[in-house]
Amino acid sequence: MNFSKEFTSAILIIGNEILSGRTVDKNTSFIAKWLGELGISVEEVRVIPDKESVIINTLNELRKKYQYVFTTGGIGPTHDDITSESVAKAFEKKYDYNKEAYAILEKYYANSDFNEGRKKMAKMPEGANLIYNEQGSAPAFYIENVFVLPGIPAYVELMLPQLKKILVSGKKIISVSCDAKLRESSIALDLSNIQDRYPDIDIGSYPYSQEGGFGTVLVMRAVDEAKVLRCKEEVEEMIRKHTSN
Amino acid sequence: MNFSKEFTSAILIIGNEILSGRTVDKNTSFIAKWLGELGISVEEVRVIPDKESVIINTLNELRKKYQYVFTTGGIGPTHDDITSESVAKAFEKKYDYNKEAYAILEKYYANSDFNEGRKKMAKMPEGANLIYNEQGSAPAFYIENVFVLPGIPAYVELMLPQLKKILVSGKKIISVSCDAKLRESSIALDLSNIQDRYPDIDIGSYPYSQEGGFGTVLVMRAVDEAKVLRCKEEVEEMIRKHTSN
Repeated sequence: MNFSKEFTSAILIIGNEILSGRTVDKNTSFIAKWLGELGISVEEVRVIPDKESVIINTLNELRKKYQYVFTTGGIGPTHDDITSESVAKAFEKKYDYNKEAYAILEKYYANSDFNEGRKKMAKMPEGANLIYNEQGSAPAFYIENVFVLPGIPAYVELMLPQLKKILVSGKKIISVSCDAKLRESSIALDLSNIQDRYPDIDIGSYPYSQEGGFGTVLVMRAVDEAKVLRCKEEVEEMIRKHTSN
Repeated sequence: MNFSKEFTSAILIIGNEILSGRTVDKNTSFIAKWLGELGISVEEVRVIPDKESVIINTLNELRKKYQYVFTTGGIGPTHDDITSESVAKAFEKKYDYNKEAYAILEKYYANSDFNEGRKKMAKMPEGANLIYNEQGSAPAFYIENVFVLPGIPAYVELMLPQLKKILVSGKKIISVSCDAKLRESSIALDLSNIQDRYPDIDIGSYPYSQEGGFGTVLVMRAVDEAKVLRCKEEVEEMIRKHTSN
């Protein structure tokens, strides 16, 4: 875990459909893995409703606390899409048509009705920078350290790579894992001793049950690859010891 | 959305594996749907790391703000399972063996090594009430308005029904939906007009794309069933109008 603000981030999932349980959020996992590759850690995730005051307050808290904030959801054409306007209010910026976004949408809807809902997707905080959507129509945007992404996972996956040149990367977080065909409770003590010897490595223990019995996946994460690999050797040795018992 | 504290809740997902993107959190969706049936709304979800100070601060914030808090993760036998001890510190309670939990585990591990890791799962804040696990071994617990559940979804699903008699239920939130084979941007204005006529109903619009084109699922949620059904009729009429165009 990172303790300074550098290379830290938060993900802010905006949408009643996640809070009601209707939709399982898949954006967190994708964004977090992608950021991990860049050496940017996700320190917290929040899921909040489509409610202006909550969006403003949460965003203002998170954007001060972390180097980057990634929001998803609420930038579409309907009445419940209030993220862009709320972000404008959080930054105390004018919320109005972004000319470039308007032109993109006008062209996209040239052969159909360029109605109010569609036009609304061009409205952003003043000074926003576009994040283009090559497949869909409406661009997303970023302003200062806040990246405002759509809710549809396919669009997030399409847009995120564009941000690589904008974000200041840290050292890639190396993650390796071992699958122990053992109950985690039988290796807890030995694993704890290994963790004590490798304080810089984040060792996670994730039990699972499958047909045929229990198992535990052990995950080791840190930026120092050589150290992670040494740690992994010790973990594997420990697993062999228990398996042969 | 609920504006008083009554019938509100927050879900606190504790675990580095969710923040790193390794694991997609499925507990939120299950817990939120189950609470919706009881008329308890989930107002926010937070995902935080296995880090004591963060767990304590976040829990103390949430348990004051909402009627109920449900945590998942971090109550297993390994070094990275620090939820129970952190909850004890948040409540300023002693963290020690719960006699009943100890007896359950002692019996469960009668024919194998009842080691320190396994014993640790019996440690809880003083005054904790057990939530039993009929399939697995270790019980979970609750203290005041905080329900401390495991991270493994199968165990959460097993344990949650036990809480039905403990939680004070609200009015069940009725949720109905229509699948419009239309782009959401083409119905945005009409939908907004319907929302204006039904201010008590939370109307959500969720676009999707599939082979064969675009579509939008419209979800209507509120406690007043008759009103929800009237609203649904208007939405269906609106969809028919656009489909025949």
